[in-house]
Amino acid sequence: MPDAAIDTQRMEKIVSLCKRRGFIFQGNEIYGGLNGVWDYGPLGVELKRNVKDYWWRVIVRERDDVVGLDGAILTHRAALKASGHEDTFSDPMVDCRTCKARLRADQLPEKNGVNQCPNCGGRDLTEARPFNLMFSTQLGASADPDSIAYLRPETAQSIFVQFKNVLDTARKKLPFGIAQIGKAFRNEINPRNYIFRSREFEQMELEYFCRPEQGLELLDYWLEERLKFYENIGIGRDKLHVLTVPDADRAFYSKGTYDIEYAFPFGMQELEGVAYRTDYDLKQHQTASGKPLDYFDEETKARFIPHVIEPSAGVDRTVLALLCEAYDEETVTDDKGKTEVRTVLRFHPRIAPIKAGIFPLLKNQPELVTKAREVQALLRPLMNVFYDETGAIGRRYRRQDEVGTPFGITIDFETLGERDPALRDTVTLRHRDSMEQERIAIADLPERLSRQIR
Amino acid sequence: MPDAAIDTQRMEKIVSLCKRRGFIFQGNEIYGGLNGVWDYGPLGVELKRNVKDYWWRVIVRERDDVVGLDGAILTHRAALKASGHEDTFSDPMVDCRTCKARLRADQLPEKNGVNQCPNCGGRDLTEARPFNLMFSTQLGASADPDSIAYLRPETAQSIFVQFKNVLDTARKKLPFGIAQIGKAFRNEINPRNYIFRSREFEQMELEYFCRPEQGLELLDYWLEERLKFYENIGIGRDKLHVLTVPDADRAFYSKGTYDIEYAFPFGMQELEGVAYRTDYDLKQHQTASGKPLDYFDEETKARFIPHVIEPSAGVDRTVLALLCEAYDEETVTDDKGKTEVRTVLRFHPRIAPIKAGIFPLLKNQPELVTKAREVQALLRPLMNVFYDETGAIGRRYRRQDEVGTPFGITIDFETLGERDPALRDTVTLRHRDSMEQERIAIADLPERLSRQIR
Repeated sequence: MPDAAIDTQRMEKIVSLCKRRGFIFQGNEIYGGLNGVWDYGPLGVELKRNVKDYWWRVIVRERDDVVGLDGAILTHRAALKASGHEDTFSDPMVDCRTCKARLRADQLPEKNGVNQCPNCGGRDLTEARPFNLMFSTQLGASADPDSIAYLRPETAQSIFVQFKNVLDTARKKLPFGIAQIGKAFRNEINPRNYIFRSREFEQMELEYFCRPEQGLELLDYWLEERLKFYENIGIGRDKLHVLTVPDADRAFYSKGTYDIEYAFPFGMQELEGVAYRTDYDLKQHQTASGKPLDYFDEETKARFIPHVIEPSAGVDRTVLALLCEAYDEETVTDDKGKTEVRTVLRFHPRIAPIKAGIFPLLKNQPELVTKAREVQALLRPLMNVFYDETGAIGRRYRRQDEVGTPFGITIDFETLGERDPALRDTVTLRHRDSMEQERIAIADLPERLSRQIR
Repeated sequence: MPDAAIDTQRMEKIVSLCKRRGFIFQGNEIYGGLNGVWDYGPLGVELKRNVKDYWWRVIVRERDDVVGLDGAILTHRAALKASGHEDTFSDPMVDCRTCKARLRADQLPEKNGVNQCPNCGGRDLTEARPFNLMFSTQLGASADPDSIAYLRPETAQSIFVQFKNVLDTARKKLPFGIAQIGKAFRNEINPRNYIFRSREFEQMELEYFCRPEQGLELLDYWLEERLKFYENIGIGRDKLHVLTVPDADRAFYSKGTYDIEYAFPFGMQELEGVAYRTDYDLKQHQTASGKPLDYFDEETKARFIPHVIEPSAGVDRTVLALLCEAYDEETVTDDKGKTEVRTVLRFHPRIAPIKAGIFPLLKNQPELVTKAREVQALLRPLMNVFYDETGAIGRRYRRQDEVGTPFGITIDFETLGERDPALRDTVTLRHRDSMEQERIAIADLPERLSRQIR
């Protein structure tokens, strides 16, 4: 697969829309911003919730073989020593002696074969040295080294650390999984590409435990499941690239890893890794903690450490991919022959932050407003709706197009049955992508829309 | 209201059940545990999700006047300087010179009027000094003081800091609110009372902005709304105590604060604070950041800083209150006249982790199993169900009683229509609290159960 084309302008438009419409804001912006830290605004938080809720539904609630966990962010130093993070979770860093910038050594621009500081253009750089990416803090009131704790760099480790407790309480037999959604933190030297590589981010991780002989088959099974997931939220298979990570690039303990990649406007980048991690993690924690983390097989009476498949997805990356995939501009012509550019987010209805806009045609007609409020009350228990009575109807449609609302419902004089009694209690249902409109009975809305957003 | 009775034994039973059945585990337990840090197991995570989802539904999705936000945990030092946290968010701490313990000065036991170390009994304590409760960390690769960031001690501040961005994008008019659910962190000197006072916890906070003249009325409105919330998840008003915080105990900027308290087994303690914070927070951030955080009134053409009402609830505290409220033991007599103690969590169906247990009477009868799997497939898209075919039916009921599952559905020979064709495709529906059983058509289950869990 060829490298994805870089489209800086497109990326800038998406970032601008996200700020303008309240999807994503720079963290602590009024204080100059915190580099690599982002806040989700009113629409972003709904989009993110929809992604997480759908993942939880298909990975945990609709399966018999997976249970959930919600582990803490603050993590014991010993756990991240055992996992290898304290010693080896680092990026190579250099200092620029001219402007004092700290830079990722493996991402430096070159000029005539010599590394260059991207800030000042200087070439007087230090040797590269490892910089650990974990954030540390002091737990409790005393300041000795024993009180150091880390912000977890991934959610996975709390699953391994609690493996025995879950096994003892959930009564699951192999193969079974433990799933978690939660924040993780990495002190990136140079955060970049918007919410793609940030210092605080959210993960959706599944650790799926199995017998050693099932490992490779389940690796392929989970790759397939994960591709289906992206398809079901609007990122088709043709938009994803599956990279089989070569032997040399895999962690030494892994028997196979796929990267699911997406062509972001800034290039082809990893959305999710699906890794067969063997029994490495549980073994490490068993050795370091001295607590048994093995599985007792009731049939064969054998005890062994299960192997594990890990589909590990980034929530923020998925949100960004959805925004990039959905963003579209098209030239449309109105009834007066005037052309304009329509910006539309073509979100799958399942993940759209708002499912339906509800519009009384005129806000100064009490019957229209009352009816529109009734439609809102009817649909609200079933989905996130947005009531808007301000401005021309065309402008209201455009505002919802721009935030990806799949349905527009307009309450007009036909709804009141004034011209044609047969049309009483019907509304105009407008479809975001085609802009086509149809007449539908209010009573049919709940079923019709519910089916499409689920 | 008298002080709540302390019931240590009851608390121990709840803690034991939570560990045994997979609600809550000590964080990093296999490494000796991390003091004041807890992980939620398979059932705990579902219970917590249900509480958060219901809060989000009634506070954000079902209201026109509230939007959501999801701010970062990593927070700019300047923001928490402006809010007052860097200078004054502290507890008084003393050291015991004998055993070196660090202790909260205001919680020391006394003996003959002299403070005593609870660890060693020593009386050689230092003077009290303030200990700041915020966790700090270093952001980025350089180690200068500018790179210090804090883990937020409350979610509220990111709402104030993003007030202008939300106002500009969500087009709301006063009064309106910004709501957030998320983690916060406090480096408690002595964490205690299980998940009640922990170092990492989750908050559900609403900042409801209004005109100054609406403040006191809205304070009472929100107190009432919040009491309804607890009632709707199973904590009736008679179980809650509303404390009107006396003038002397309120923050100097607050014009009124209510504490909603619950009688935990370890005493009457705060579940939620509902505070009228005036314009203090926005003013502080406007002054410190130099960015305008005012509101433009289109009607009067005036600009002013809105006042704010803050209902601030703890997710973990609510979960603990639900567990305490639900926990019950009762002596029951079986058909053979044998008595036993039944442990039951009487959760409101709305927040119960599992809504229905699905049981084929016998696991070695394929028709029963097939039918039970059909019932599972029918209900699963609508609710969290648990299929169990192991052990005597009475034992399966008890296992679900203990984790608070409100409904038990048993597929038996009547379901197959073998004895009475009129009973074909009916099942036994057992109610957890009364243990009463009724016969119901499978086709009626979705509607019947959905109504009660919503």
